[in-house]
Amino acid sequence: MTRRGLLGVESDLVATAARRVMARCDELARVSAIRGSIERVYLSPEHARVNRLAAEWMREIGMTTRQDAAGNQLGRIAPVSGEPDAPALLLGSHLDTVPDAGRFDGIVGVLMALEVVRLLRVPGDEAARTGLPFALEVIAFSDEEGTRFGKALLGSSAVSGSWNDDWWTLTDAEGTSLREAFLDFGLDPGRVGEAARRPAELVGYLEAHIEQGPQLDRRGESLAVVSSIASARRFQLTVEGEARHAGGTPYDMRHDALLGASEAALAVERICRGEHHVIGTVGQLEAFPGAVNIVPGEAQLSLDLRGEFDGERDRVWLAIERELDTIMGRRGLRWRAREVHSAPAVFCAPLLQDVVREGILSTLPDGADDPAILFSPAGHDGMAIGAITDVGMLFLRNPHGISHHPDEAVSTADVALGIRALAEAVLQLAADR
Amino acid sequence: MTRRGLLGVESDLVATAARRVMARCDELARVSAIRGSIERVYLSPEHARVNRLAAEWMREIGMTTRQDAAGNQLGRIAPVSGEPDAPALLLGSHLDTVPDAGRFDGIVGVLMALEVVRLLRVPGDEAARTGLPFALEVIAFSDEEGTRFGKALLGSSAVSGSWNDDWWTLTDAEGTSLREAFLDFGLDPGRVGEAARRPAELVGYLEAHIEQGPQLDRRGESLAVVSSIASARRFQLTVEGEARHAGGTPYDMRHDALLGASEAALAVERICRGEHHVIGTVGQLEAFPGAVNIVPGEAQLSLDLRGEFDGERDRVWLAIERELDTIMGRRGLRWRAREVHSAPAVFCAPLLQDVVREGILSTLPDGADDPAILFSPAGHDGMAIGAITDVGMLFLRNPHGISHHPDEAVSTADVALGIRALAEAVLQLAADR
Repeated sequence: MTRRGLLGVESDLVATAARRVMARCDELARVSAIRGSIERVYLSPEHARVNRLAAEWMREIGMTTRQDAAGNQLGRIAPVSGEPDAPALLLGSHLDTVPDAGRFDGIVGVLMALEVVRLLRVPGDEAARTGLPFALEVIAFSDEEGTRFGKALLGSSAVSGSWNDDWWTLTDAEGTSLREAFLDFGLDPGRVGEAARRPAELVGYLEAHIEQGPQLDRRGESLAVVSSIASARRFQLTVEGEARHAGGTPYDMRHDALLGASEAALAVERICRGEHHVIGTVGQLEAFPGAVNIVPGEAQLSLDLRGEFDGERDRVWLAIERELDTIMGRRGLRWRAREVHSAPAVFCAPLLQDVVREGILSTLPDGADDPAILFSPAGHDGMAIGAITDVGMLFLRNPHGISHHPDEAVSTADVALGIRALAEAVLQLAADR
Repeated sequence: MTRRGLLGVESDLVATAARRVMARCDELARVSAIRGSIERVYLSPEHARVNRLAAEWMREIGMTTRQDAAGNQLGRIAPVSGEPDAPALLLGSHLDTVPDAGRFDGIVGVLMALEVVRLLRVPGDEAARTGLPFALEVIAFSDEEGTRFGKALLGSSAVSGSWNDDWWTLTDAEGTSLREAFLDFGLDPGRVGEAARRPAELVGYLEAHIEQGPQLDRRGESLAVVSSIASARRFQLTVEGEARHAGGTPYDMRHDALLGASEAALAVERICRGEHHVIGTVGQLEAFPGAVNIVPGEAQLSLDLRGEFDGERDRVWLAIERELDTIMGRRGLRWRAREVHSAPAVFCAPLLQDVVREGILSTLPDGADDPAILFSPAGHDGMAIGAITDVGMLFLRNPHGISHHPDEAVSTADVALGIRALAEAVLQLAADR
């Protein structure tokens, strides 16, 4: 016995939709640059292939389609009024992947959006409209992960009008520049600005995504309202000591940069473990000159710091800075940090949080507790899109909390609940207008 | 007032010899593959040039010269008997370098040996003999450091008959194999065995070398007797955890291989600091996949362990193994070690230690304390040569304890004392026969 929502469709329609999403996740997983592994990067032949597939699926449900000037694939369906220039609610996520990816991160959000359109269009309407007071657009962002050029959110940055011309000279591992890749893909770098949307064209942006951690699984719940996308800072840290002969240099003469860096990595863990809403990761560490018989004179390490709130994140960074001063001072080492990325927390719009919560509630029995509200420590396209319109997000349970990995998973049952919740959220938003 | 030794030469002759050694160190430093830095590797054009220079200097003092089948440069001077096949005392060191080397490691030992021959030859003797009962040979080993092919002691291994045919396929950074490099240098790989010496041809091997640490400088002494060359083991350690998304994976779900490796590096320092005669160094550490936003699933690190005695070294390795089991067990990580090098301690022959001590005593005032006896934590050609004859070594003070670095230093005054001590040691050895 679930609560009655605005969505009046049979549950076997939704179950069929969820099975189609899962089958299409499998189909997209086969579009990969690497046999036996999933890798699909920006402006690659695989990118073109999944755009063609997505466009086909969009047209199948009556949407008009286009690929924008940054390679994002879009489909549009008119509102009940049929007005061609009506503002649109964007639904979607991204189709690009990290190396050795799973099948669901991003992908499932695009495919669920298509099913929501299928559920909401007017049956038998030859003009292909929904019953909504706004247009619906499904957007498949072309580059969220930043795998190829090291810069994430390229697709959504183009849509939000925050494209930076400095990026044209970014190169991939083969030395191909972003500009050359645009041309090779058949896009015109001089027209990338045409991908940008004006706020007045948009009602908002709603995205369903698998949770990239274990919180929902631990709570035994299927879906969560997302409150915000984490605030993040990234640093490249350099520790300098003195390279010395490993045989002849006693410990009291050593200024071993690698040992300083090792203490730093452990300090990040120790400090962040004491925090509830901040997490820090050292993902890269290398010693130089890197010879088996030389005491390292330099070490470089990365620091990725994420927090629910900018202030907490910055307070933790100050604590790490103080601790590194102590560690390096004790060892006679010098250290410095170069900030390579900084993004403020992006808060989901209260109205969109409300309709997502209503959507989730419509999947729960009467009297169930309110759904979980989680912040997302991982980045999403909403970080860029937030600059031009309201953002809302829905998380789906991740059974092992694993993402960016072939073991990434989501259940068909949870996808069905997610489709229902997302469709209901769209209807609630329509009812509010 | 110094003690009277067997060497009856004027001290200004020795001072002149020391200045010549220093000037020649400067001259050899200019023979480098890299402008502004010293790098001279096995079978390179620079190797050929320094061999020609050394041969010229050998002939200048009446030695007959040859380059052996492994590219080692040799000079020989007959004993007082003039007997052509008399057993020889080998004096020398190596002329190859590490990258970005100093001017003295190895080099000073070859040049001091030449000055000892100059001091000991019979003045005005047209047949060019010494007054000794054995021949003297000066040997300039061609590869002690292993810079080019990653395998140290190639030159002295050929002389000791321990050349291993597996080495022929070792390649340098450009992919040139050791076999190809032999041919390019004008050597015949099939004849490398001809470089090997038989024990019966040899009286022993005596080498002067700068200390590669600060012990003599700290004691305020110029010269030391070397008791042994360190026992060494090298390991490549692998730590395995699970690669996970840095944003979504809370600490209690992480198995971070880099944090395990960091603890391991610090444990090596902590354990070895408590030991008097063992030193451990982690010179290499790298995390995989090595992305800023992925919790490392694997880390690799090197361990270089040196000890005065094999037993101590092995006991410390067992302690490290136990500690790593504890660390990795606590973090849910797996680890394994691959031993990539093992060399037992090589002890200097008691007789050669005695004559070196007598040599040093002859440079000290009456009533001075016995000279320092040090073991060498760094490797030397004597490790290979010890397989075919007795080895003795003399260390010279290193003012900052720095070697394998452009700041490597030795004073002209200490070189003068070293030449006198080495010549005296040869005379004492002759007197003992």
